[in-house]
Formats: sequence, C-alpha cells, structure tokens
Amino acid sequence: RVENDNLNSEWNIDSSEFAKSTCNPVRKLIEQMKIEPNPELQMIALSIGDPTVFSDIAKPDSVIKAIQKCIDDKKFDGYTPSYGTEAARQAVARYYSRPDNLIYKFNDIILTNGCSQAIDLCITVLANRGDNIIIPKPGFSIYKTLAGTLGINVKYYSLLEENNWEIDLEELESQIDDRTKAIIVNNPSNPCGSVYSRMHLLDIINLAERYRLPIIADEVYGDMVFPGNEFYYMSELTRNVPILSCNALSKRFILPGWRFGWVAIHDPKNYLARVRAGFNDLTTRILGPNSLVQASVVEILDNTPQSYFDSIMETLATNAEIVYEKLQTLPGIVPRKPSGAMYLMVGLDMKCFPDIPTDVEFVQMLIKEKSVFCLPAKIFECPNYIRIVITMKKEKIIEACNRIEEFVLAHYKPNS
Amino acid sequence: RVENDNLNSEWNIDSSEFAKSTCNPVRKLIEQMKIEPNPELQMIALSIGDPTVFSDIAKPDSVIKAIQKCIDDKKFDGYTPSYGTEAARQAVARYYSRPDNLIYKFNDIILTNGCSQAIDLCITVLANRGDNIIIPKPGFSIYKTLAGTLGINVKYYSLLEENNWEIDLEELESQIDDRTKAIIVNNPSNPCGSVYSRMHLLDIINLAERYRLPIIADEVYGDMVFPGNEFYYMSELTRNVPILSCNALSKRFILPGWRFGWVAIHDPKNYLARVRAGFNDLTTRILGPNSLVQASVVEILDNTPQSYFDSIMETLATNAEIVYEKLQTLPGIVPRKPSGAMYLMVGLDMKCFPDIPTDVEFVQMLIKEKSVFCLPAKIFECPNYIRIVITMKKEKIIEACNRIEEFVLAHYKPNS
Ligand SMILES: Cc1ncc(COP(=O)(O)O)c(C=O)c1O
Ligand SMILES: Cc1ncc(COP(=O)(O)O)c(C=O)c1O
Repeated sequence: RVENDNLNSEWNIDSSEFAKSTCNPVRKLIEQMKIEPNPELQMIALSIGDPTVFSDIAKPDSVIKAIQKCIDDKKFDGYTPSYGTEAARQAVARYYSRPDNLIYKFNDIILTNGCSQAIDLCITVLANRGDNIIIPKPGFSIYKTLAGTLGINVKYYSLLEENNWEIDLEELESQIDDRTKAIIVNNPSNPCGSVYSRMHLLDIINLAERYRLPIIADEVYGDMVFPGNEFYYMSELTRNVPILSCNALSKRFILPGWRFGWVAIHDPKNYLARVRAGFNDLTTRILGPNSLVQASVVEILDNTPQSYFDSIMETLATNAEIVYEKLQTLPGIVPRKPSGAMYLMVGLDMKCFPDIPTDVEFVQMLIKEKSVFCLPAKIFECPNYIRIVITMKKEKIIEACNRIEEFVLAHYKPNS
Repeated sequence: RVENDNLNSEWNIDSSEFAKSTCNPVRKLIEQMKIEPNPELQMIALSIGDPTVFSDIAKPDSVIKAIQKCIDDKKFDGYTPSYGTEAARQAVARYYSRPDNLIYKFNDIILTNGCSQAIDLCITVLANRGDNIIIPKPGFSIYKTLAGTLGINVKYYSLLEENNWEIDLEELESQIDDRTKAIIVNNPSNPCGSVYSRMHLLDIINLAERYRLPIIADEVYGDMVFPGNEFYYMSELTRNVPILSCNALSKRFILPGWRFGWVAIHDPKNYLARVRAGFNDLTTRILGPNSLVQASVVEILDNTPQSYFDSIMETLATNAEIVYEKLQTLPGIVPRKPSGAMYLMVGLDMKCFPDIPTDVEFVQMLIKEKSVFCLPAKIFECPNYIRIVITMKKEKIIEACNRIEEFVLAHYKPNS
C-alpha cells in the first residue's frame, strides 16, 4: 500500500518506456511536418508509399465484388481464429506455393494487420530485450520502430550503392554477435528500389546458415519488379534456413488501408516448432485482421488478373524512367535507377548547395518553394539522399520533376 | 562477431520471453479443446462471446449499405493516419459526448484494432516492466495476456458476488503500491454480467483520485444493460480523474470480426499530455484499423436505429431470464442473475458432484456427454463457476438448459 504521504500529492502521469522507445520517423515527419507549401502551387506529395494514388489504373471489379459479396453474405462479421481463418490461410498458402520448390500448408500462414504487424510478430517472437536483429541501411524505418518499443537492439549492415544496393556481406557478418537473433532482408527494397539477384540471395542465405540465424524476409514488394528483372522469394532458394516471409495486400494489390498481411513460415527442417507456438500466442493479443477482408481474400488472390499487375509495373517502370532521365540532367544531384518497388533514390552533392545544410532542409525548402514533398533519406539512415515515390500519374510526375529542376537550378552553386 | 566454434553448431531457435509470457487462456482453451462432443447431439457452443450468433436479429441495412458504399467509392483503400481518420474520430467523439457533462473532441479518440488493442495501448502507454496494474477477479483474461507479454505485473481486486459483483474497494485499496500505474474497471462485466450503480462508480473514482491513478475503463459492453438498469460511462462522472475508456463496435454493434475499436481519452485537467504523445507513437507500430471500416463508421454511428439496440437487449434479457429460471431449479448449482452484457455465471457446489474434480472437468464432461460448451470460470480467475454465453437463439438456449439439467441430475449426489 502506498504511504499516506502519497495521498494528496500531485498528479504525475508519465508515458512508459515502451512508448518513449517507439518512434516511427516517417509517420512522425509526415504527420508533424509544419512547413507551409508555396500557396501558388498545388502540393505534389511524393512522400508516403501509398500506391492508391495510382488513380489511373482502375482496381479490378473482382476485388470490389469479392468483398461486397462477403458483406452481403452476412456470415463474416464474427470473430475468426486469432491467426486467421483456415480458408484465408489456405488461399495465401496456395498463392505463394511454387509447384517445384516451395509448398506452404495453411498452418504455415499467420494472418496479420498488414505487413507491419507481420514484421512485429517476427521480431517479437524471436528476440528478447537486449538481443539484437540486423537490419539494412538504407532501410525502412519500421524495423527500428518495432524493435525499439521492446528494448531489442538494432545493428545495421550497409547496402552498397555502387553494387546496385547489394548487401555488404562482410559488414553483415561482422555485426553478428551472440545476441543476434535474426537478419532482416528487404527485397525489393524500400527506399532503394533495388532487386537482388538469385546469386546474391543465395550468398545471404549461406551466411545465415553458417551462423544458424533465421531470416525475416520483408517481401512486401515481392513480384513488384520492372520488366526485365526477376524476383525470387528467399523461401524458394533454401531447404535449410528458416525464412519468415512477411507480406501483405498493401503494395502489389494496392490495398494498404485494408490492413491485411501475413507471415509465411518456411521451415523445411522444422527448427521453428517453439516459434510457431509463440506466433499463435502472440496473435491472441489483438485477434487477427478484419474478417470481411479475410473472407474476400480467397477470391482476390485466386482471381485478380495478371494484366492488372502487369499494367501497374509498366506504369511504375515508365515513371521511374521519366524521373531518372530528367533528374540525371541536373547538376548536383544523382538519381539512382530502380529495378522494382515504387521508389527512386536521389543522391545530393551537398557541397553544390551551400545554402542547404542537409537532406532534411533540402526537403523542407523544396516544399516551401515548390510544393513538392519528398522524404529526406536521413529517416532511412541514409543522409544526403532524398526518396521519391513514383506512383503518381505521369503528368504529376513530370510537373514534379520540372519543379525540382527549378529548385535545383536556383540553389546550385558550381563546386568552387 | 560470433566465435568460430558457433559455426556448425546446431540450430537452436527458441521463442522469446515476450512470446512465452503471452497466454490468452480463453483462446487457448477454445482453439485447443480436444474433447470430442457426444456424436449423437449437435454441439451448442455457449463459450465465446461472439454476438454474431444472434442470427435472428437482422443487422440493419444501414450498416451493410454504409460499408458497401465506401467500397464503391474507391476512395478509402489508402493508408489512414495511424491513430485514425479525422472523420471517424469525429464520429466517435460525437456519438459518445453527452450534451451536459461530457464533451469529446476528435483528438481525444485513438482508433484501434478492436477493444483488445485499445486496452493494449492503454496498458503499454502507462506501465513499465515491473510496474503493475490492478484488475478484476473474476475478470476478462485479456488484461493479463496483454500485460504479461510486456513484463507488467497484474494484481487482483475481488468482485463480491454477494454485492452483485461490486468491487471490494478495501481490497482494491490494499493492492495499490508505488509501482501501480492504473486500475482497470470493466463495466458491464465479462464474465459476471453485472452493471455498476452510479454510486459505486463514484466510489471507485474517489479511490483513484486519492491515489492519483488513472482508470482504464473497459466499457466494451457499454449501454448493453437489460431493461430497468442504468449504465454510466465513468467519464461522465468525474471532472478530475483521467479515464481511458476502451470500446469497440464488437459487442453492441455486433461486429467483432471488423476489428474496430477506440480509446476515448477523458482528461479534463490535462494530466495526460505525455500519455497522448505516447499513444500517437504506439499507433505507428501497426497503423490503425481497416480503412473501409473507418470510412463507414460515420454512417454506422450516426444512423443505426435505437430500435436495433433495444431489440437486442430485450432478447438478451429474455434469454438471461430463461437460463436463470431453469438453472435455479437444479440442485448443486446456483445461477447468478445478470443485469447486462451477454453472460451468466453459474456457481458449482463441487461437493455435490463427487465424480467431478473442478469446473474444468465439469465443462469437459458436459461437452463429452451433452455437446454443450460453456467456459470454466477458472480462466477468469474464478474457479467453481462456469460462464454461459446467452446470445444464442431461444430454442437453442432452452435445448442447452435441458441438456445441462440432464447432466446435473446424472452427476448430482446429495450432500452427505
Ligand atoms: C519495406 C516495407 N515493409 C513493410 C511495410 C508496411 O506494410 P503494411 O502497410 O502492409 O503494414 C512497408 C510500407 O511502406 C514497407 O515499405
Ligand atoms: C470485457 C472485454 N473487453 C474486451 C474485449 C475484446 O473486444 P474486441 O473484440 O473488440 O477486441 C472483450 C471480448 O470478449 C471483452 O469481453
């Protein structure tokens, strides 16, 4: 019992260490950005990786009909098992199995609230407080956000720009210590837009195998590669190393708001028996994704036409080309050609912009002067780059590039 | 770097302490129950608190139309702010404000994946590892599940059956120590079906005020009281004590699978500034509930007819009456009359059932012999009771009661 002198004391309610250790720099920046855009120019946001701004590619009727039918049926409003319905897990398992070299069963699939919660469950189930996971730099910020809450440390491996953003395997190896519990690999990459070759993926898998480390494969941009590139799920490439593949309807199916994702457990040697039990327990905390989406996903996965995906990827490839061709003519900045996902990285030669201290001010001034909103890649642990989202309509993309050109030319000072 | 002798060692992947500390006994029991029911009798599940089994009360067309329209609009598939859209938060704030004594603004509302995640956020934002929260016994198991993952301790206060399951305030007070961070109050109660009087709620609030403790009010059964009873949100009753009211569409709106809930922050004296910031950060981990539901909730909250709620509560009250009247004629068991929610507790006089060791075996044998599935209240920290869900159709409820009668009479041995 609290001593009496605690009575009548002041109210003093602090937030917990869990909350204080949680920071999502992308959301924070976007939700708190106080910079006023140029009132004379309509804002063009190339910031958040939300593919629904693709308004010129119509969502297939099959998707809309599928979920509307589930609502009409009135049978799908109840609780589902916390890891998801068997039908939805079967559908995901069927969709991601490869006849020759990868067979998922429904109980290899854990349904989640988007890829974010899939990654959250993987990190939470594998690592204790004080353990670490090794994550890419540049890389998506959510790994650190999720680990931070739980007091799990992150260590970084570099992606080498000069090698098409492949992983610096030596550095990765040097980061492994006896508290390392997993390696996170994000392929295709946010923010780099890179796509790993089969060979590079095998090298990563070999390294993980030597150190007996499971891989958390963030494959939310899986299959989103530009024509001429090939994508491999890591699970296809190993019969030994446990792979937890995290994915969602968010990007490829352009349904980020639906909050439907999954972990696909690839574990041919059955090293993950305790981890599977852990997943089941952890899902009982907030009880799985929306039941209507679970019910409709069978139809969506089975019947979304390939032509839909193809036209999305063609549009993205065209947009990437437009941005790349335009920006590479400009002084002081170096665009990097992506091979997939929805992003393009642009290196800034800060010496050429003496009135702009860092990528963060570059982005802020670009909003203020030209109403174009990119993200400073500092929030992806990659200062002196900006990340451009390439999902907008072509005319907007061109308009944005023209404004960036004006901005760059106004601030560029030839290297003295 | 790991020493070389770690190479070639065995794979040994354990689940984390987070996972091991997570146990949801209700889900575990329901998902892992291996008992075969009597093959000659159709199973009647009175176990999980899923109101959608109410198949004889049709969901209002307004609900179905609302969400179908949002799908047709094709504007609601994108990411929302992680704490929810302003429109949906406005709708919740409007719906739960009371003109005279309670005004919520939209930024008092944090949208979540069901009431479960609302409670999760409240516990996570207030308590550190090693702190404690004080929770009811008997009480819903999720508080312990959620706290357990994070190493937050739970301490219990008793609900006094003889006082209509009111809180033993002395015991509650005696449990408070200098690591107590919040009191959880669940009204109406799962599993007790009790509804607190205004006076009792004021007593609890006074106690919280004396110890400067915020209250997490699990009000997911708010307004679900039988005719003749009155329900008060705790927020209506204080101008000082911070109340975090957790709620959802799950129970009253009969949409548990939609996973839409919220925390409503009532904090007239502004003690929770840091906690609000913490909520915002914590929501960025998995990014809010389904966007279609967020879009449709405006219409659903504004236009679901009161007659719908009234007919649900009349049906529940009738079902409660049927079960109570029937079971109170039986020897060795004592049903407790509920005043709200969807549950009825039945005390078991175990001395009268010498071949049945505990409530758990009582439940298992009832399944095996009579295909009726109740929950042993042991999982609510209340051994020697069973909990009956009263949302089934009348004929099923009567059939279940008849089977329970046969079961009780077969096993009852007059007290020797
Ligand atoms: C690499 C990566 N992983 C995960 C996510 C989160 O996906 P979801 O919206 O399905 O939670 C994103 C979203 O931007 C991402 O870029
Ligand atoms: C008291 C109580 N709180 C919270 C919940 C969880 O509600 P939701 O399904 O909205 O997460 C339940 C569900 O049974 C409950 O009984």
